[in-house]
Amino acid sequence: MATRLLSEHGCFGGVQVFHSHDSAVVGLPMRFSLFLPPQARKDRVPLLVYLAGLTCTEETFPTKAGAQRLASELGLALLAPDTSPRGANVPGEADAWDFGVGAGFWLDAMREPWNRHWRMESWLITELLPLVTRSFDLDGDRVGIFGHSMGGHGALTLALRHPGRFRSVSAFAPIAAPMRCPWGVKAFSGYLGEDRGRWRAHDASELMQSQAEAPFPGGILIDQGLSDKFLSEQLHPEAFEAACAAVGQALELRRHEGYDHGYYFIASFADDHLRHHAKALGKPTSTGSTSS
Amino acid sequence: MATRLLSEHGCFGGVQVFHSHDSAVVGLPMRFSLFLPPQARKDRVPLLVYLAGLTCTEETFPTKAGAQRLASELGLALLAPDTSPRGANVPGEADAWDFGVGAGFWLDAMREPWNRHWRMESWLITELLPLVTRSFDLDGDRVGIFGHSMGGHGALTLALRHPGRFRSVSAFAPIAAPMRCPWGVKAFSGYLGEDRGRWRAHDASELMQSQAEAPFPGGILIDQGLSDKFLSEQLHPEAFEAACAAVGQALELRRHEGYDHGYYFIASFADDHLRHHAKALGKPTSTGSTSS
Repeated sequence: MATRLLSEHGCFGGVQVFHSHDSAVVGLPMRFSLFLPPQARKDRVPLLVYLAGLTCTEETFPTKAGAQRLASELGLALLAPDTSPRGANVPGEADAWDFGVGAGFWLDAMREPWNRHWRMESWLITELLPLVTRSFDLDGDRVGIFGHSMGGHGALTLALRHPGRFRSVSAFAPIAAPMRCPWGVKAFSGYLGEDRGRWRAHDASELMQSQAEAPFPGGILIDQGLSDKFLSEQLHPEAFEAACAAVGQALELRRHEGYDHGYYFIASFADDHLRHHAKALGKPTSTGSTSS
Repeated sequence: MATRLLSEHGCFGGVQVFHSHDSAVVGLPMRFSLFLPPQARKDRVPLLVYLAGLTCTEETFPTKAGAQRLASELGLALLAPDTSPRGANVPGEADAWDFGVGAGFWLDAMREPWNRHWRMESWLITELLPLVTRSFDLDGDRVGIFGHSMGGHGALTLALRHPGRFRSVSAFAPIAAPMRCPWGVKAFSGYLGEDRGRWRAHDASELMQSQAEAPFPGGILIDQGLSDKFLSEQLHPEAFEAACAAVGQALELRRHEGYDHGYYFIASFADDHLRHHAKALGKPTSTGSTSS
């Protein structure tokens, strides 16, 4: 299935593109942004996926995080999908900023009426990643994932739910224990129903706690601002930290004085995340052909 | 006169702040953003002023250009003023995106009804710069200026109209010869009237042409994307280039294949502009006291 180019911009020697495609999984057109570093013109470069937070779109990360500069040096492609279906016209879909439109929570909804279109996990894993790596000749075996807030939750849970799919994972201010916070309880009740057994399968701290051994021997990186107004009620990094400790998963959880929940915080530490992933994703290979 | 803090964000070891103040010159509250690098906590650092383009606000540059990373290394404060008065309620002020609100053109209007509030040049030079350097204890003797499109026009013209005020100047895709392009003719007619003698005093190419000697011996830097859809009709960098040549002003005018008029272009080359200015503005001094 083809993707439609919406716009294209020269950026740090590479190109920042915006695309749409007709998603069979979601049943609607879905958007994503992609930064292709200059190395992608002749090599099959690795891919780093960024999942954004509540209210964001595929535009938020490429516009605000400033990650293309170092991605261009390191030879990393950067994929940022939109955060929910748009135009489904589910009643009430836009009534709240933390549920529905812009708030897909990176899972497949199981409850009516959300289960028809709100299938963000299957969209990303089974449709978008294969489509993007194939269409742009990226190295689908070298993929990392990171994200912010709701997208940090998505990065951690998808990395744990799909062993082997992602070689590396990190997060900015993730919703690290959604079963214990209002955002998570609202989203899980609405999308998954009241069975808390289902919730556990989408809670990063519960998922980590249930691992037989450390799933990411290279370590996980999390940055958290201490002036983040959502920290104490919504994020609970300490729960994920305890779960990692329990299973011997190396975790670098950095707590930063004076940083809040926004993109000035993310931009300040984005380079460290790119280097974390580049280490796991290795150097670009020179085996591919862009015309294959 | 005091400024009001609207928001504050930790950013690359420094702080990104947004302020408002009651401008006597404009007769309305005016907004600006300011990045203070970590060095500003103990030293009087130099200031680099960024003027944004049509439709932009004080938020555009700090959000999209990614300049704080290197400013934090170099010890440069970054000031981005809003691009026009807001809330003046002049009839028709928001009817066009290239005149009125968001389109102050960095000059003082002379025609009714614009001349009451649209006084962007006097606001910046006589009110905002003294206010900001005093309030934040910056080095008012070491100030550079740059900008984009309409703001590139502003940077070039204000640097030439106020000798000694700015030590360095550069621009991204400036409206370099506004008398020769539709945006400039519309703005100058509307704000200054039909007397083209007045226009010359706000046209960078005309101003440069009239210099007795090169006003910026350290050189001027301009970046221009060759995929910029406004290049041929609106920007005319070749006119400014010819004027610089005529008066012996060193100009590095770089033309970039594949880059358009937007912030992916600006972000790609922002570091080079910061280094250009840092060279002229020198290293931070250690003489000031932040409590003075």
